[in-house]
Amino acid sequence: MRTFAKPLGIAEIIQLIGGDYKGESSLVIKSVAQAAEADAQSVIFVDQEKYLQVSAASNAGLIICTEAYAEELGNHNLLLVEKPYFALMKLVSIWLHLETHSRIAEIHPTAIISPLAVIAEGVTIGAYTVIEAGTKIGKGSIVASGCQIGKNVSIGSNCHLYPAVTIYEDCVLQDRVVLHSGVVIGADGFGFLLDGAKQVKIPQIGNVIINNDVEIGANTCIDRGTIGSTIIGEGTKIDNLVQIGHNCLIGKHSILCAQVGLAGSTIVGDYVYLAGQVGAAGHIKIGDRAMIGAQSGISNDIPEDARCLGYPARDAGLMKRIMAAEMSLPDMYKAYRRSLKKEGD
Amino acid sequence: MRTFAKPLGIAEIIQLIGGDYKGESSLVIKSVAQAAEADAQSVIFVDQEKYLQVSAASNAGLIICTEAYAEELGNHNLLLVEKPYFALMKLVSIWLHLETHSRIAEIHPTAIISPLAVIAEGVTIGAYTVIEAGTKIGKGSIVASGCQIGKNVSIGSNCHLYPAVTIYEDCVLQDRVVLHSGVVIGADGFGFLLDGAKQVKIPQIGNVIINNDVEIGANTCIDRGTIGSTIIGEGTKIDNLVQIGHNCLIGKHSILCAQVGLAGSTIVGDYVYLAGQVGAAGHIKIGDRAMIGAQSGISNDIPEDARCLGYPARDAGLMKRIMAAEMSLPDMYKAYRRSLKKEGD
Amino acid sequence: MRTFAKPLGIAEIIQLIGGDYKGESSLVIKSVAQAAEADAQSVIFVDQEKYLQVSAASNAGLIICTEAYAEELGNHNLLLVEKPYFALMKLVSIWLHLETHSRIAEIHPTAIISPLAVIAEGVTIGAYTVIEAGTKIGKGSIVASGCQIGKNVSIGSNCHLYPAVTIYEDCVLQDRVVLHSGVVIGADGFGFLLDGAKQVKIPQIGNVIINNDVEIGANTCIDRGTIGSTIIGEGTKIDNLVQIGHNCLIGKHSILCAQVGLAGSTIVGDYVYLAGQVGAAGHIKIGDRAMIGAQSGISNDIPEDARCLGYPARDAGLMKRIMAAEMSLPDMYKAYRRSLKKEGD
Repeated sequence: MRTFAKPLGIAEIIQLIGGDYKGESSLVIKSVAQAAEADAQSVIFVDQEKYLQVSAASNAGLIICTEAYAEELGNHNLLLVEKPYFALMKLVSIWLHLETHSRIAEIHPTAIISPLAVIAEGVTIGAYTVIEAGTKIGKGSIVASGCQIGKNVSIGSNCHLYPAVTIYEDCVLQDRVVLHSGVVIGADGFGFLLDGAKQVKIPQIGNVIINNDVEIGANTCIDRGTIGSTIIGEGTKIDNLVQIGHNCLIGKHSILCAQVGLAGSTIVGDYVYLAGQVGAAGHIKIGDRAMIGAQSGISNDIPEDARCLGYPARDAGLMKRIMAAEMSLPDMYKAYRRSLKKEGD
Repeated sequence: MRTFAKPLGIAEIIQLIGGDYKGESSLVIKSVAQAAEADAQSVIFVDQEKYLQVSAASNAGLIICTEAYAEELGNHNLLLVEKPYFALMKLVSIWLHLETHSRIAEIHPTAIISPLAVIAEGVTIGAYTVIEAGTKIGKGSIVASGCQIGKNVSIGSNCHLYPAVTIYEDCVLQDRVVLHSGVVIGADGFGFLLDGAKQVKIPQIGNVIINNDVEIGANTCIDRGTIGSTIIGEGTKIDNLVQIGHNCLIGKHSILCAQVGLAGSTIVGDYVYLAGQVGAAGHIKIGDRAMIGAQSGISNDIPEDARCLGYPARDAGLMKRIMAAEMSLPDMYKAYRRSLKKEGD
Repeated sequence: MRTFAKPLGIAEIIQLIGGDYKGESSLVIKSVAQAAEADAQSVIFVDQEKYLQVSAASNAGLIICTEAYAEELGNHNLLLVEKPYFALMKLVSIWLHLETHSRIAEIHPTAIISPLAVIAEGVTIGAYTVIEAGTKIGKGSIVASGCQIGKNVSIGSNCHLYPAVTIYEDCVLQDRVVLHSGVVIGADGFGFLLDGAKQVKIPQIGNVIINNDVEIGANTCIDRGTIGSTIIGEGTKIDNLVQIGHNCLIGKHSILCAQVGLAGSTIVGDYVYLAGQVGAAGHIKIGDRAMIGAQSGISNDIPEDARCLGYPARDAGLMKRIMAAEMSLPDMYKAYRRSLKKEGD
């Protein structure tokens, strides 16, 4: 159960998310819960038949559901909407927004902020966070506790860095960027050349640029460009433990699921979907709106709108036929052996 | 070589781990070593023929071995047991336990602990650790240096958080939970919906519940539930760099090796074994005692006791036959081409 | 654009990296840039035809290129060399070296250093870093802010630990080791034994030894040995998010790309190349100079100089033929089904 700071009356709730209400007009709700744990001030939702029984037996003060379930749940206060899950999520987003905006900005006295850093008004900086010279943080941003922000970093407005984020020097975050804990932005790209008997380091002097409304999951790493920038496009969302190599260019509104790995200089288009553990070779291009199945290995350019799968990644339809045929491969092999023997006779 | 704070006489050692002793009764041991580095106060073990020679030549004060090697190693003090490795590991566990329990609990003066947190007796908190309001820590637990513990977190008794662990608000650890460095518990689940041209965030208001005796490796991420909880069952052990998505339910006493990735709402049973780099799609169920080979891609339910392998994951026996047949696939393909040509003639 | 602290005159530049100069003798350069952003004090390089036009139109003060492009770029100051990229990278390395060596060593007053630690001269230690008893740090090393260095750690000279690195007790770094942010060295190896109904922990009392000139990427984990050491050989370079299990022995000058995972006791030779997301089973040996393709799954020993690919990893030539044949597998399957039917007739 998640309880919110601001209780909402049913009239306010209807005003915020709409719907057709059947129940007590004095109802006040302050938490979101699962059916079994809900109490008289909780809201729950039902959008599948399998949850009907437990919901009917719930103590929830309010149930958001479709007209279809109104009768079975008739012993509760009901808010009838077309899409119960979305309606509830909209309500939750509003509640979270209210909480964030009632927060008072505060710079913790233990934060070490270089006198050469420029911190806008309304910025929150947590305990033991270190901010080095030349760095700028825009208004309304939150840099939580234990973060390490290097020199000449630019953080826009209304960004949220969770605890223990690290950003190397010269990197740029635009506005409303969210970085979860353990994220490392701007570590050196992985560039070495075998010169005789030794691996010689190629110096990495570029940076990382993260555009508006990007969110990046815990412990993900985005390396700085060798020269020039590694760029994450506006609105793209990246999950946990993802690796993005130096000089990658990721487009807008794309989705990179957990543990994806992109080698250096990979180009990813807009609205691309890379499922979990996908790997891509360097210096290739994945076209706009391409969707790549989990664990696929991409070694060549992928056209726009492609659906790909497998190792190596191939057209998803073909790959599914290959996978189906593989089930008979042992039998096909036996038949092949018999035919060889027959030929030999 | 690892030297322990408390030296043990041979009589104590025999009392603790048993065995049949042949050697000096005044022997005192205080370290565990490899054969080559051992000294007169070290114990080593031998359980394979290939280590006999180096062990015979070792300066080790004590050798734990089986009866079978007693003659070859007769120039040393010997403790004869059935399973030398387990006997030594039992001894080491006892030594480590003695060290931990002789430790004096201490809260470092630089730890920032909210006055609204509740810290039990005998808790150790390291330097520069931050503990926010509403959080409870049970007796005997250790939260090492540089940890970030959010609001309303519940940590049970005798837990051990190594340095630089992060826990987001509302998460729950029961007793004797071990979290290694860089672990992130409770970051937002990866939930976005493409609404027109933008990815819209689904708010993540659940939590993570980690049951008794769970151990989690370095830099592993366990995301909070969207609504409700992501749950790790009692006694389950998770290796480094693992990703566990929102609302996963992991059973008891299971083993998840390094770099495993589970998408959201995956259900994993009890005594399951997932080898390294396994990936599982969301909303599927992996039955009790299933064993899944390294790098397998699980896209469908796996029955109890199954042995699976490959991409996509299939019955291990079938998959091995497929893999064997693949070795001949180029030749089979040539034969197929010849047959096509013949038909065409 | 990266601007360096020390501007260099063209005469100095020629002395440092050689080449045939055509241009103003009074030229002074202080930044490296991409063509479009360059100004009169920037150097750029051209080594591909496709960058000629943008380079010709650039405001760069100096262009490093080959003789072949001298005419098209004749309106600029040119430094003609055989390998423009390497020449520029050499110059950048010298610039970075000058910056590092002009740095004044400083121990931040908030660093907590045990009185039982031994810190050499010229060591820099960042804010809020914790260094425990018995640890030694050699001259010229940098331990940046927010690092957690356990007991009895040995760090050699001229090492560079970026912010938020964690090292567990007893681990050893030789000289010139570079660890990027979020690296965890020496967490417990993943060893558990199912004893009846419970997973029993095998105590992990070894350490990690990292030899000279190793560089390790962000959020990579290297586990301590169970007994004995996990060892990384001289000059080996490891990328981000890599997992190295307990008691692995990695040779010299090898390359491990991002998200590689090695199970316990894997032996990797010298000059080995493991591409991204490769996984290796434990207790196997990968021979010197072997090159393993991305996402490969290694379950058996790999001979020296092998080129391998795939899951399971096979000779790369064979694997490419298998992959090519797979494209026809659905058709081969249909033919097989027809032949079965014919036989049945």
